[in-house]
Amino acid sequence: MGVSVEIHSDFGYVVLVIVATWVLLNWLGLQVVKARRKYEVQYPLMYCTDTFGDGQMFNCIQRAHQNTLEVYPVTLVLLIFGGLEFPKVSALCGVVWIISRVVYAQGYYTGDPAKRTRGVFGYAGLLVLLINTIIFALDILDFV
Amino acid sequence: MGVSVEIHSDFGYVVLVIVATWVLLNWLGLQVVKARRKYEVQYPLMYCTDTFGDGQMFNCIQRAHQNTLEVYPVTLVLLIFGGLEFPKVSALCGVVWIISRVVYAQGYYTGDPAKRTRGVFGYAGLLVLLINTIIFALDILDFV
Amino acid sequence: MGVSVEIHSDFGYVVLVIVATWVLLNWLGLQVVKARRKYEVQYPLMYCTDTFGDGQMFNCIQRAHQNTLEVYPVTLVLLIFGGLEFPKVSALCGVVWIISRVVYAQGYYTGDPAKRTRGVFGYAGLLVLLINTIIFALDILDFV
Repeated sequence: MGVSVEIHSDFGYVVLVIVATWVLLNWLGLQVVKARRKYEVQYPLMYCTDTFGDGQMFNCIQRAHQNTLEVYPVTLVLLIFGGLEFPKVSALCGVVWIISRVVYAQGYYTGDPAKRTRGVFGYAGLLVLLINTIIFALDILDFV
Repeated sequence: MGVSVEIHSDFGYVVLVIVATWVLLNWLGLQVVKARRKYEVQYPLMYCTDTFGDGQMFNCIQRAHQNTLEVYPVTLVLLIFGGLEFPKVSALCGVVWIISRVVYAQGYYTGDPAKRTRGVFGYAGLLVLLINTIIFALDILDFV
Repeated sequence: MGVSVEIHSDFGYVVLVIVATWVLLNWLGLQVVKARRKYEVQYPLMYCTDTFGDGQMFNCIQRAHQNTLEVYPVTLVLLIFGGLEFPKVSALCGVVWIISRVVYAQGYYTGDPAKRTRGVFGYAGLLVLLINTIIFALDILDFV
């Protein structure tokens, strides 16, 4: 009943992409730290109550980080299991996702939340990871 | 010293449950998007400062999503390691957890935060996953 | 092309440390629940709008939990992949990280956000986990 899941050597690329997501999160977090200084938003305040001008600007920078954190765990797990099936394609999808989150953040950083949608192409990467994960599941279940 | 962890074929069910958690998160997120339109809450605002009426309603819908995101990473990791030991039971616990989060959200969506506790049975699933994870750890440490 | 990743028996320690992170998150969450009662902050409100006195105190307690949740997923994944390469060292780094988050929280709980930085030593543990993860990736890619 057991299946021996031999990890493909290329899975190393998936792990390196995971390391790159760590860089992404740190970059996003650093923008918030810098925005705290610039707009004088003290800890532990998360969002400014002024929702215009500087307050709006700070909240946009904060949200770009927070929204990425919200989708991060599910992205990671799909990257890992999708990567066990198709490591190279999945690693590439991970890179697309990382780039999309930078573009998303840059859009949000304009202060116009609508521009965050420029990063929408990241969902394409996520969708492929989802499909790869389903194929991995069916594969070890011996359906495919 | 090394142990060969042969993945049981049934672990595929665990992976499919993880895919189902992706559906859950998207459903919860969609409710927030719809609530933003209905109650006219603009991005990047996370919570309404009015904590009564429509503002309270929106905040309840937002919190149902956010609270699920808070417990999601630890749930995932217990599901995965618990699932390596007992895949079928762990997959079932994952399904119980997903259902509990829908019930939790439906309770929260009434606008009365106390009703979110209807989803408390999800902790039973989580507890079994925790026990399965501990058994997995002791198993590969050769204690059991 | 495939590499057989034999899990070291000591990886069980890594899994036990993951179980310990579950205890940490529950402890941090419990402090928020107690603070909600003490300072009479009703659900679904996340942060007090009063950013001084009791409101400031509550927000500090809330942030100690939330900030830990923000860094948790990436910590977990580095602990897991770093742990596949060097299980004992990585488990130890996980313990250091857990202790650092308790110290961080205790600092934040003083009501003076600056004191949260006492937990900064946790980054040392995280950095070692990052290096272990990179070595794991290069190892299965056959670079080292």
